[in-house]
Amino acid sequence: MCTGSPSSNGSQAEESSENDNQQEQRSSTEQEPEQIQSTAIVSCTPEEVLADYGENIKLLTLNSQVAELLTIIRDKNTTRSDFKFYADRLIRLVIEESLNQLPYTDCDVETPTGAIYEGLKYRSGNCGVSIIRSGEAMEQGLRDCCRSIRIGKILVESDANTHEARVVYARFPDDIGSRQVLLMYPIMSTGNTVLKAVNVLREHGVPEKCIILSNLFCTPAAARTVVTAFPKMKILTSELHPVAPNHFGQKYFGTD
Amino acid sequence: MCTGSPSSNGSQAEESSENDNQQEQRSSTEQEPEQIQSTAIVSCTPEEVLADYGENIKLLTLNSQVAELLTIIRDKNTTRSDFKFYADRLIRLVIEESLNQLPYTDCDVETPTGAIYEGLKYRSGNCGVSIIRSGEAMEQGLRDCCRSIRIGKILVESDANTHEARVVYARFPDDIGSRQVLLMYPIMSTGNTVLKAVNVLREHGVPEKCIILSNLFCTPAAARTVVTAFPKMKILTSELHPVAPNHFGQKYFGTD
Amino acid sequence: MCTGSPSSNGSQAEESSENDNQQEQRSSTEQEPEQIQSTAIVSCTPEEVLADYGENIKLLTLNSQVAELLTIIRDKNTTRSDFKFYADRLIRLVIEESLNQLPYTDCDVETPTGAIYEGLKYRSGNCGVSIIRSGEAMEQGLRDCCRSIRIGKILVESDANTHEARVVYARFPDDIGSRQVLLMYPIMSTGNTVLKAVNVLREHGVPEKCIILSNLFCTPAAARTVVTAFPKMKILTSELHPVAPNHFGQKYFGTD
Amino acid sequence: MCTGSPSSNGSQAEESSENDNQQEQRSSTEQEPEQIQSTAIVSCTPEEVLADYGENIKLLTLNSQVAELLTIIRDKNTTRSDFKFYADRLIRLVIEESLNQLPYTDCDVETPTGAIYEGLKYRSGNCGVSIIRSGEAMEQGLRDCCRSIRIGKILVESDANTHEARVVYARFPDDIGSRQVLLMYPIMSTGNTVLKAVNVLREHGVPEKCIILSNLFCTPAAARTVVTAFPKMKILTSELHPVAPNHFGQKYFGTD
Repeated sequence: MCTGSPSSNGSQAEESSENDNQQEQRSSTEQEPEQIQSTAIVSCTPEEVLADYGENIKLLTLNSQVAELLTIIRDKNTTRSDFKFYADRLIRLVIEESLNQLPYTDCDVETPTGAIYEGLKYRSGNCGVSIIRSGEAMEQGLRDCCRSIRIGKILVESDANTHEARVVYARFPDDIGSRQVLLMYPIMSTGNTVLKAVNVLREHGVPEKCIILSNLFCTPAAARTVVTAFPKMKILTSELHPVAPNHFGQKYFGTD
Repeated sequence: MCTGSPSSNGSQAEESSENDNQQEQRSSTEQEPEQIQSTAIVSCTPEEVLADYGENIKLLTLNSQVAELLTIIRDKNTTRSDFKFYADRLIRLVIEESLNQLPYTDCDVETPTGAIYEGLKYRSGNCGVSIIRSGEAMEQGLRDCCRSIRIGKILVESDANTHEARVVYARFPDDIGSRQVLLMYPIMSTGNTVLKAVNVLREHGVPEKCIILSNLFCTPAAARTVVTAFPKMKILTSELHPVAPNHFGQKYFGTD
Repeated sequence: MCTGSPSSNGSQAEESSENDNQQEQRSSTEQEPEQIQSTAIVSCTPEEVLADYGENIKLLTLNSQVAELLTIIRDKNTTRSDFKFYADRLIRLVIEESLNQLPYTDCDVETPTGAIYEGLKYRSGNCGVSIIRSGEAMEQGLRDCCRSIRIGKILVESDANTHEARVVYARFPDDIGSRQVLLMYPIMSTGNTVLKAVNVLREHGVPEKCIILSNLFCTPAAARTVVTAFPKMKILTSELHPVAPNHFGQKYFGTD
Repeated sequence: MCTGSPSSNGSQAEESSENDNQQEQRSSTEQEPEQIQSTAIVSCTPEEVLADYGENIKLLTLNSQVAELLTIIRDKNTTRSDFKFYADRLIRLVIEESLNQLPYTDCDVETPTGAIYEGLKYRSGNCGVSIIRSGEAMEQGLRDCCRSIRIGKILVESDANTHEARVVYARFPDDIGSRQVLLMYPIMSTGNTVLKAVNVLREHGVPEKCIILSNLFCTPAAARTVVTAFPKMKILTSELHPVAPNHFGQKYFGTD
């Protein structure tokens, strides 16, 4: 089981009727800092993740390079320029690892010297879908790896009165039902926004097992919510711990 | 022990008085294709590498994503535009993994919510050095990871008569002796060019253990040569097998 | 006065109760191709633009380089990969020229040899705002010129029944009222979407004269609409002619 | 005639037996700062350039955007990270303008709506050649405009004893004689390095009129030297004045 601050985790899990965006803004201002201050953030190991959430959620290998990127992104004193630069590097690593989950076939090619090289190639028919707004930060990383991949987009907002999350905008490739979909959303606090987005993809004919969720930071509560709801979806993240860096979108884009 | 075509390997090892550049051009035209054609290229596993060359030579994890990049780069039918695009992706992964070898220190930072995050940071004082010409293909990848890193440059050529490799040009940061050096050279057939370049770095006061060699493709012969000569240098590569894609520089830059 | 197909121009102007997005999709499918086919597209010269629309709408200098970019983007046989690459180049040129409209002050600096260089510097306090979706194609170009500029976002949609354009989503820097705003929207057929977006900016306290509209393709009808409504806003575009490449967003992103 | 510090100009012209690299390093350390300090740098206007050097040397339009880039690059207090970022922007503008000098042909294309668009396209068969080392700073800008353009390379060094400039390394596309060549070299103090490089290109069969020299900063002395020697070569630069920012390469790459 992951260690960390269980109370903040628990309080976030209770607010399940709100979407992540609202949640994010609130938590960064209202969370009791004095309580958290005394607790160092401890994230889960891959073994704990496997035991707790099953094999479909994968953690980026935590080498010193990734640890440095996480440190810079977490640090409140990082400038916006540095924040974006290092977030883009982490995004690139998560995207590469996400692409790694795509189906492929064996493929022999001939080299310039006439030798046969026993390689492989990915199947065509992939696309990306970013969840507005923070998910859009991951679009460039995907384009830098897949030159002309189609990238759809979805906007989920919660009603101010009913707190119901609803989809207010969606643009997809018209044949999305027959594609593998890389769903991009960097910060998961409760998982509610992703729940809504995946449901929309399924309404458009995308099977659950054809969705790979690319994520940077995930709380244990969000991981449990999403894994429970969509056990066949693959999830790629770089860190699993109780406090998500909810200032991500605000700092990356420089807007509210 | 790595399998593969031992004779081509052997013949390359014999030509040890020439530098890699000349070697590369010759091998792509004169290597007996009919002999190689019957032998599929089989590269080494990390376990074989560890057993054969020790712990200072590291292979990029061969996941399906990396395997696809290697396949595209090996394929003689890949267009120049695609070749460059996918080579750049592989370079980025090798650079990230090379940076991972740099020394770091623990570093606690404070997050926007007031929590303490137990992270790490790299020590300052790193630089890159590319070996002209193919090594220059790796400069952009390094810059994309380290925004304003200093990048030196070295040109090794072999004398047309004596076949002696010699350094004809070198530019380094003036305090290079006190820096960690990422030496960039993508294709190693014999290892001679790298031997010469490392010697120049040592003459400039860089300790062997402070050099990390970033490489894409390496023959077992070159690996043995370099590891034997510089046992304390770290080497990062993506594939170890007897036939190096010697057309790399020609195809990447589009020149002889 | 600009030449071109006056009827298609007129018919577009009549449909002023719809927003550009709907307009775009319709026009690309329903516009009478046989009629347009016989008419070569002739765009306006800078002199005609000045005479017709006043000095606040500026055309990118039509050199051969820009003409080639426009040709590639117009060509229906251009691949998606090429389309995106060359659209990004045109976007970069338009962004550079748009930045050129920002206010600056004189600024003397000292050079490394001790000389005084009489230069200038831009005032701080700028930001970008992209109109979803096609405007987002211009964000990267802006970031490539202004490293950590804040970029807001606005989504305008038209009601399916009433055809009324309305703002369904907006995220801005909180002090946007005191900033110069680069509003990004590449294709203007009717100008309705931009009208709506500018009104939202004004409601957030941005003076009309502090807005620079960065646009790639504009119809004369849209230019007239926007210039009439906001005579103090600056507009930068690369071509003014009756037929806008309404397939831009679809081809750039690969989605409906 | 261009104004400016005539004596430094004159003294540079006298040292014509040395190549630019040596010249650059010396001038940044030995030039009498007290003399220059009292003289503001005043660069030439396009009209003065035309009158003095003929129509084959072209200046980038000096709008406020370009002026800001020049100011940042001149400023001795600019950080290395900013220096590289803004130098890259200026390079991109100069490259775009250089590409603009390439030969093209008329070309009608069909748009998605069936209209005919009267455009143009560049002739194929172009390549870049960078002069090591500072010229290499311009390679990425060229690649960002021309996806898979071939880029050759040339190294000119001066003999320590005889002060004779000589070519120690050159790699070109094998059919360079039938190509338009974009020769890249950002700083021209005396013009000697460029003289040598152009001669090598001509020895490889490239006609003088097929060479476009892409340059950022040029002294009047260098302009006169190069224009006199090669009246048919086109030259593109962003500023013409007596003091060249000779620290460019050192600051851009961070090495001696």
